[in-house]
Amino acid sequence: MTPVVRVDWVLTAVEIAGTLAFGLSGFIEAARKRMDIVGVAAVTFFAAFGGGTLRDILLDRRPFFWVQHSEYVWAVLALVVAGTAGLRAAHLSPSARPMLWADALGLGLFSASGAGLTWEMGQPAIVCALMGVVTGVFGGVMRDVLCNEVPAIFADHRPYAVCSFAGAWSFLAVAWLQGPGWPALAAGILVTAGLRLIALARDWRVPGLAGP
Amino acid sequence: MTPVVRVDWVLTAVEIAGTLAFGLSGFIEAARKRMDIVGVAAVTFFAAFGGGTLRDILLDRRPFFWVQHSEYVWAVLALVVAGTAGLRAAHLSPSARPMLWADALGLGLFSASGAGLTWEMGQPAIVCALMGVVTGVFGGVMRDVLCNEVPAIFADHRPYAVCSFAGAWSFLAVAWLQGPGWPALAAGILVTAGLRLIALARDWRVPGLAGP
Amino acid sequence: MTPVVRVDWVLTAVEIAGTLAFGLSGFIEAARKRMDIVGVAAVTFFAAFGGGTLRDILLDRRPFFWVQHSEYVWAVLALVVAGTAGLRAAHLSPSARPMLWADALGLGLFSASGAGLTWEMGQPAIVCALMGVVTGVFGGVMRDVLCNEVPAIFADHRPYAVCSFAGAWSFLAVAWLQGPGWPALAAGILVTAGLRLIALARDWRVPGLAGP
Repeated sequence: MTPVVRVDWVLTAVEIAGTLAFGLSGFIEAARKRMDIVGVAAVTFFAAFGGGTLRDILLDRRPFFWVQHSEYVWAVLALVVAGTAGLRAAHLSPSARPMLWADALGLGLFSASGAGLTWEMGQPAIVCALMGVVTGVFGGVMRDVLCNEVPAIFADHRPYAVCSFAGAWSFLAVAWLQGPGWPALAAGILVTAGLRLIALARDWRVPGLAGP
Repeated sequence: MTPVVRVDWVLTAVEIAGTLAFGLSGFIEAARKRMDIVGVAAVTFFAAFGGGTLRDILLDRRPFFWVQHSEYVWAVLALVVAGTAGLRAAHLSPSARPMLWADALGLGLFSASGAGLTWEMGQPAIVCALMGVVTGVFGGVMRDVLCNEVPAIFADHRPYAVCSFAGAWSFLAVAWLQGPGWPALAAGILVTAGLRLIALARDWRVPGLAGP
Repeated sequence: MTPVVRVDWVLTAVEIAGTLAFGLSGFIEAARKRMDIVGVAAVTFFAAFGGGTLRDILLDRRPFFWVQHSEYVWAVLALVVAGTAGLRAAHLSPSARPMLWADALGLGLFSASGAGLTWEMGQPAIVCALMGVVTGVFGGVMRDVLCNEVPAIFADHRPYAVCSFAGAWSFLAVAWLQGPGWPALAAGILVTAGLRLIALARDWRVPGLAGP
């Protein structure tokens, strides 16, 4: 029992850290767009919960993960209040090292868990992998659409969705061999977060098209 | 029986007035963006039905309210035809007094009813309140996203979602004390619409962030 | 049996051609916006599958059509790989004649099938027609929103959604007379595609508003 509890505890910590990192990226982008606090709060919520909610809509899962864990809603609300009351947007940077780590781990967890939930519903592997990517990256896409920007992950030439895709397939490979337990989850998280952090450290680029 | 019928009749009138006010805001914005009549019709429909439809998707409710009441679809279609045939966009203004009243009442009704439908499904209070806000304001958000604008309610510093949030909590407070009947609905509508109209009259502002 | 098989075969061919034409329009627009290959792939997928997926969400149908036919996902993925590896975006044009034909046939098929699936669920006719239009045109709307453009079909004054609407009503008229079999489907496809191709050939325009 003890190791299971410990794993659960670690996963919950990663999930909260990832959710807050996603939310903070929305907070910062909305603040940069000079939105009022309503807009800042809305974009923060979409960045934090958008990917998982879209996954739940696509898989027809209810209640949503943030309804089951409504303490997450309060945590993100606290993030908005704390950010608005005390912090200056200038002092927050989505490229700060702790945020990048939290974001990478959150991306890994959401990619693996998105693929895993789809796997448990007996879907084809390519669908599981796509759903992992949707879960991981669509909060950021909604954030950018609401801020009236081309989604950064579509155009900044930094590996992000690619790491999520690789992590989702890693989860699926281990789950296919051993069942969808915590080794598969660990594989998904480590491959995603590892690739993402190496890509940032070495400045890897996603190519564009060769077109004119 | 009679009072119930009268309340229902009032609610239906408010719902239709609110839907048409929401739709008209879409009509005007699309006309300003020089869309063709297809775009004007599409944006009008999204502004009128977008918030309630998103609520129904999130709550997994079917049929949609506009499928149950398909006469609402015809009413909005009539609005598009009447607007296109007879009116000049210059003569319509979303800041005209009758539109502001219809919009404020509609916002109140949709906020309260969104919170109420979620309450009946046994969800946590914070989720009910958020769903009330989504129902009230997301037609306008979709309208602005389709028109390629930053959503006005996120950045115009005018209280709108805040009024909806307060009205949803008012509904919930009365519903918690007395059950989700028409006094709760009236509280939600009056608090939302009252705050909204006072905010407009006194030019209240939503603060931005203190950041640079 | 043989004619049924032949009809099915024709429909599948039209469906694949339409999906690839829709996807290719996303590929080209994303390449023009200088997205990286992640963005190009994402926009291609949304353009190809967005309309049908939104229809399935609105109708609460699961599994999605691209989960049932996961070979379509692979086909679109192959389109992305082939487009990225070998083609120059300059040599692809959404206004090339074969693409316009494939797009028009796909629009007709998706409009008729969207209306038909809704009809089978016993919905009002106006809802069936709107769902046919959503199925046909919303991949393109999502494509343009993700590319941070006003949706082309809302503002380019070319008949597109109008053809889809007319085709959906044609399907419904024949289905009402004869049941929703292949004559109704053929009527929907032929009216949509025919109107679309005539409109392009004769340069028909959708009017704007008379406003200032």
